[in-house]
Amino acid sequence: MSQLKQTSYEPLTEPAAIELALSLTIFTENAELSCREIGDGNLNLVFHIVDVKGGKGVIIKQALPYAKVVGESWPLTVKRAKIEADALKTFGQLAPDYVPKVYFTDDVLAVTVMEDLSHLLIARTGFINGETYPLISKHLGEYLAKTLFYTSDYGLGPAAKKEQVQKFINPELCKITEDLIFTDPYFDADTNEFEDSLRTDVEALWQDAELKFHVNVLKRSFLTEAEVLLHGDLHTGSIFAGNSDTKVIDPEFAFYGPAGFDIGQVFANLLFEVIANDSKRDHFIRHIKTVWSVFKDEFSRLWNTENKVLSAKTDTFLRYNLSKFFEDSIGFAGCELIRRTIGLAHVADLDSIEDEQIRLAAKRKTLELGKILIKQRKEITDVPSFIEKVHGVL
Amino acid sequence: MSQLKQTSYEPLTEPAAIELALSLTIFTENAELSCREIGDGNLNLVFHIVDVKGGKGVIIKQALPYAKVVGESWPLTVKRAKIEADALKTFGQLAPDYVPKVYFTDDVLAVTVMEDLSHLLIARTGFINGETYPLISKHLGEYLAKTLFYTSDYGLGPAAKKEQVQKFINPELCKITEDLIFTDPYFDADTNEFEDSLRTDVEALWQDAELKFHVNVLKRSFLTEAEVLLHGDLHTGSIFAGNSDTKVIDPEFAFYGPAGFDIGQVFANLLFEVIANDSKRDHFIRHIKTVWSVFKDEFSRLWNTENKVLSAKTDTFLRYNLSKFFEDSIGFAGCELIRRTIGLAHVADLDSIEDEQIRLAAKRKTLELGKILIKQRKEITDVPSFIEKVHGVL
Repeated sequence: MSQLKQTSYEPLTEPAAIELALSLTIFTENAELSCREIGDGNLNLVFHIVDVKGGKGVIIKQALPYAKVVGESWPLTVKRAKIEADALKTFGQLAPDYVPKVYFTDDVLAVTVMEDLSHLLIARTGFINGETYPLISKHLGEYLAKTLFYTSDYGLGPAAKKEQVQKFINPELCKITEDLIFTDPYFDADTNEFEDSLRTDVEALWQDAELKFHVNVLKRSFLTEAEVLLHGDLHTGSIFAGNSDTKVIDPEFAFYGPAGFDIGQVFANLLFEVIANDSKRDHFIRHIKTVWSVFKDEFSRLWNTENKVLSAKTDTFLRYNLSKFFEDSIGFAGCELIRRTIGLAHVADLDSIEDEQIRLAAKRKTLELGKILIKQRKEITDVPSFIEKVHGVL
Repeated sequence: MSQLKQTSYEPLTEPAAIELALSLTIFTENAELSCREIGDGNLNLVFHIVDVKGGKGVIIKQALPYAKVVGESWPLTVKRAKIEADALKTFGQLAPDYVPKVYFTDDVLAVTVMEDLSHLLIARTGFINGETYPLISKHLGEYLAKTLFYTSDYGLGPAAKKEQVQKFINPELCKITEDLIFTDPYFDADTNEFEDSLRTDVEALWQDAELKFHVNVLKRSFLTEAEVLLHGDLHTGSIFAGNSDTKVIDPEFAFYGPAGFDIGQVFANLLFEVIANDSKRDHFIRHIKTVWSVFKDEFSRLWNTENKVLSAKTDTFLRYNLSKFFEDSIGFAGCELIRRTIGLAHVADLDSIEDEQIRLAAKRKTLELGKILIKQRKEITDVPSFIEKVHGVL
């Protein structure tokens, strides 16, 4: 298979993946490549190709035309591979330290060939294994500030930003978020998954009109507020980490939305460790504080030095933007806490707790904290008051 | 010229416009057509074609590749003709009583052939001539409710709405609004136009940091909040009116933005008559009240009966949406009042006041009311408090 002759989509086999890798002049001519499909097969094929002589490797990721995670029958076009490839390139230009290098993309085959990150571990897995990754929060704060500032009207200029909005319209993947985060957890939907012992708590949540009002407001923000190019799925399973490196992967949910959505998913996924992992609690609370303080400082620096909208470059308007982002991030974090507890896609931080009573107690805490963050986000105006609410449920 | 053979843009002549009209089977074979170019030549050619025997007519509107209103040298692509044609068709489907019928469009020639509305008058001209058009506010309330509801996530469904957002990305025309409404009036820009006698008032406005903060927030809403398909330029010069008919024309500024923008422009352009036209003041205040009450009732009815987002169909969330629209519309009305007084594009309601002292007094009132509406929009939560602010400057 020559790299540019493909005119129709077909799933790659391991030999075809090797052939593609060889055609790209990433490896030397005498390379001897081994290939292993390492994806979970739910949404994508992921081939890990290594030169057994040189040790160098690449990843080939190919979108599959369906989503298994929501049942065999949920069809999903492979257009998302183009969104993902475009987002990786955009984020890679803006925050090169924190995004895997992209070597080649093909929209027809729906493949991206990218940097091999197998020396790192998925952050969630690392956390569950006891790692704390001391630099991950500083890196994520910088990644968020750079990607969210430079893709905004203020970093890009309004005309260029509108072109990006058009390019990243992403109805299929947004629908998954709209359903699984903002809709299904709030009524008795078939997609929900929770222990029978939690049914009383969950039914109380379904009856909570005030909560559902606030979730409607947050969903409205997700549907209408085209502030920045979001990663769109920035949980700790989309982050490769090591003690010195952090790489954000899998931006197939990318679209223009409210900046607080990415920040809130980072907050919530660190909160799962705060709640599930007693012995490392202070580490993860510090991570949350660091994400926000690094984000705020770097975003402010970029606002003041790189702003394309001159009239907007005032301290009061910068503070307005940061306050809005913080309030939104608190609300979206609450949504993530709830949906990962009772919705379709759970997190191993909670589900891997073996003792049933401890696991249920942790899940009741994520539900309780989720409700508080969603309803009280306007009063939670800074990190100390946020952390106070967290301590309140521990 | 046969209707589909044109492969490149050229401005139409009167004979070419007649030839185009004849090719469209709108007129009978033995029609005898007369043609007159009636546009102001700033942005578009407008041909009025009439069958001198049958009396039937059509309008052919063609975009020009520049904008004279902002100087000969401001180039503007004719792509806007496609946006306008697409918007006319969309709005015409949603509110057929209030939008001219479209017979033919051609993106290459940048022409739209549409219903002849020459039995009506531009509403602003009619108002200045002493007309009050008793039904115009009921019609505009219905037009706004239908176009703003049915193009929203709630009227259209989130996936179909995203496609419309993509289709109506409109950087060139939005830039005109961003500059002329939200930016230039707030500093000493070359585009501004005002009487020397107003300089002290205008300089005070340029020094008003609180005002400029609020304008930044409203501009941010215009840049980021893709709530509904807006007309985008809904002043009384974009409305044909008669005693029984109201037709909204010229949606070339259409794009997905905050619903309050269209509503606010309607409010502000009625306010020019409230302020400029003492003897008809109560008529125009009643018009403002009617626009909002008809809009609110019809939007609420559609929300409850046609909502595609089932979880959103609650009274509290409907009220949240209406409150947001109202607050935004008050702020955007304030911006329109100010920019039409000191910015590039003025309104004849004010400029045609012959007595200089009366004219200057009226302009000081629009500036003062503009500032109040922008700064106090969060406190102006209903029509009575809005009208109270209006009376405060009269």
